[in-house]
Amino acid sequence: MIEKFQHTINEEIERFSSEISIPPAELYEPIRYMLSLGGKRIRPLFVLMACDLLEGKTENAIHAALAVELFHNFTLVHDDIMDNAPLRRNKPTVHSKWNSSTAILSGDVMMVKAYQLIGRSNLSPDIHNSVLTAFNEMAIKVCEGQQWDLNYEQLYRISIPQYFKMIELKTAVLIAACVKIGALIGGAKEEDAKYLYEFGKNTGMAFQLQDDLLDVYGQEEKFGKQKGGDIIANKKTFLMLKTSDIVSSNPYMREELDQWMGIKTLNEKDSSEKVRAVTRIYDFVNIKKITEEEINAYHQKAVVALEKLSAPVEKKRVLIAFTSALLQRES
Amino acid sequence: MIEKFQHTINEEIERFSSEISIPPAELYEPIRYMLSLGGKRIRPLFVLMACDLLEGKTENAIHAALAVELFHNFTLVHDDIMDNAPLRRNKPTVHSKWNSSTAILSGDVMMVKAYQLIGRSNLSPDIHNSVLTAFNEMAIKVCEGQQWDLNYEQLYRISIPQYFKMIELKTAVLIAACVKIGALIGGAKEEDAKYLYEFGKNTGMAFQLQDDLLDVYGQEEKFGKQKGGDIIANKKTFLMLKTSDIVSSNPYMREELDQWMGIKTLNEKDSSEKVRAVTRIYDFVNIKKITEEEINAYHQKAVVALEKLSAPVEKKRVLIAFTSALLQRES
Repeated sequence: MIEKFQHTINEEIERFSSEISIPPAELYEPIRYMLSLGGKRIRPLFVLMACDLLEGKTENAIHAALAVELFHNFTLVHDDIMDNAPLRRNKPTVHSKWNSSTAILSGDVMMVKAYQLIGRSNLSPDIHNSVLTAFNEMAIKVCEGQQWDLNYEQLYRISIPQYFKMIELKTAVLIAACVKIGALIGGAKEEDAKYLYEFGKNTGMAFQLQDDLLDVYGQEEKFGKQKGGDIIANKKTFLMLKTSDIVSSNPYMREELDQWMGIKTLNEKDSSEKVRAVTRIYDFVNIKKITEEEINAYHQKAVVALEKLSAPVEKKRVLIAFTSALLQRES
Repeated sequence: MIEKFQHTINEEIERFSSEISIPPAELYEPIRYMLSLGGKRIRPLFVLMACDLLEGKTENAIHAALAVELFHNFTLVHDDIMDNAPLRRNKPTVHSKWNSSTAILSGDVMMVKAYQLIGRSNLSPDIHNSVLTAFNEMAIKVCEGQQWDLNYEQLYRISIPQYFKMIELKTAVLIAACVKIGALIGGAKEEDAKYLYEFGKNTGMAFQLQDDLLDVYGQEEKFGKQKGGDIIANKKTFLMLKTSDIVSSNPYMREELDQWMGIKTLNEKDSSEKVRAVTRIYDFVNIKKITEEEINAYHQKAVVALEKLSAPVEKKRVLIAFTSALLQRES
């Protein structure tokens, strides 16, 4: 089932990419480039799976599925400019391959194209409206989340609730919107759509914490991410904030962590030393286990929300199995 | 009537601005700032006037009117980053008052808010769909126009048809979409909406040519624009391209124009000299009259398109009078 959906999504992306093989090439080529970089396409998959869960026709959800993937890629392109990121999935980011103007503008077009795709879906007026409303609310929240992220970069310290709120807005509500939109297209009542939204939000939280964890404890360096990249960049992650909380009662460890966190390392050797030293503190406070427990807690909340939903048990199991598999990846 | 509409639009902008007085301030303050810079609000006015022309209820069009104003401001914020523009209406641009990240992100939110506002309009499903379709098509074209503009900046020479196509996409289709959307909300049939689109597109072309003209022949320096600013910046305008065509048969003038166009002036004195010299060439080929004729031709096309429309003659006259007045402004 999942393979079939993946196939459909890839076909749809291919079709869309050839549709935008039009001038001005400077505008549309970066969009095709972003879509060609791949990725697991989990957002459109969630749209189709949620629609299927409600026993809806997934062919009605395919445009919305592509729309969320385009929206996601739009945020990546614009975020990469703001973060000054040179690489994305081991390939040059749009603004570094072309330039910032091109990245701004092709990002803008991706957002409009997402709306255009939703408009193309063959939906009843009521469903069309509720899908658009869900999409708009999500889009606003994702932008707010990115702004909090930018704000928090300027702060020496943020609280864990602040961090959770930020990743909820920046990351989790997009997954939440995906399953909600899929469910709405599948014919879900507002209440059921809410349960799925809860499922998606908690799943999204678990995914982000998993990302935080894999940065340090992942097995391989994949997707262009350097191992311990978050540590090197002094990024505020759950691991860092929680560890900082724990060591606050231990002046010796706190001083050491603070010292490392104040360093903007320059060369590779110093970077590796920093990652090793911070990881030693992480290990000492058992942050891996703590984070895994947090991930499990969110995953459980997601499962509980899904259980409340009126839908075939075997289809729920597929969705949970898919989510669990993603949470068990090791890189 | 127009004053009443202006009043309604200003009230709606006020209401919207207070609605977005929420955190994160870094995201929403730039939007309020942009909306506070004023401007003639001609785009939302066109939405309401077109709706009124069709004897529709303008209260149903007010959200769409605000949406096009927000969309317009979104393009200004993003374009100003790309153009590296320090000032907008004599005030610092968003990216120079805050920073590029804030300008990218608050621009993104403005676009989403535009869609959200359209969704809030109380429209029948059919009209809602056709409004969204018109809005999406417009948004894509405006981005394409901006990309052509960026491309053409890199070229030494573009043709006048290339220039016309670029300003059509970048500027005219937004005016066209405004009147089309207003008409659709007013209950226009598809054919009548097309006539209004033609009216708006040709009016938009005339507006842009008027802008080109006023840069050189405007009476006062307003809206933060330096007199002859386009000349100083070697900007490709109708005046420049047409003059260049005319002097191509006169080697002496062509050489002089080419020399000036190759100069990136640095100080104020040199800038003034350049503006004087190029204006002398413009005067010599009578470019003011030629441009005015071009503006009139587009205005006439707009009027002809409007005449084909089934609507009360006195309301058509209001719309034409409004457009004519805007085209007779001298600064």
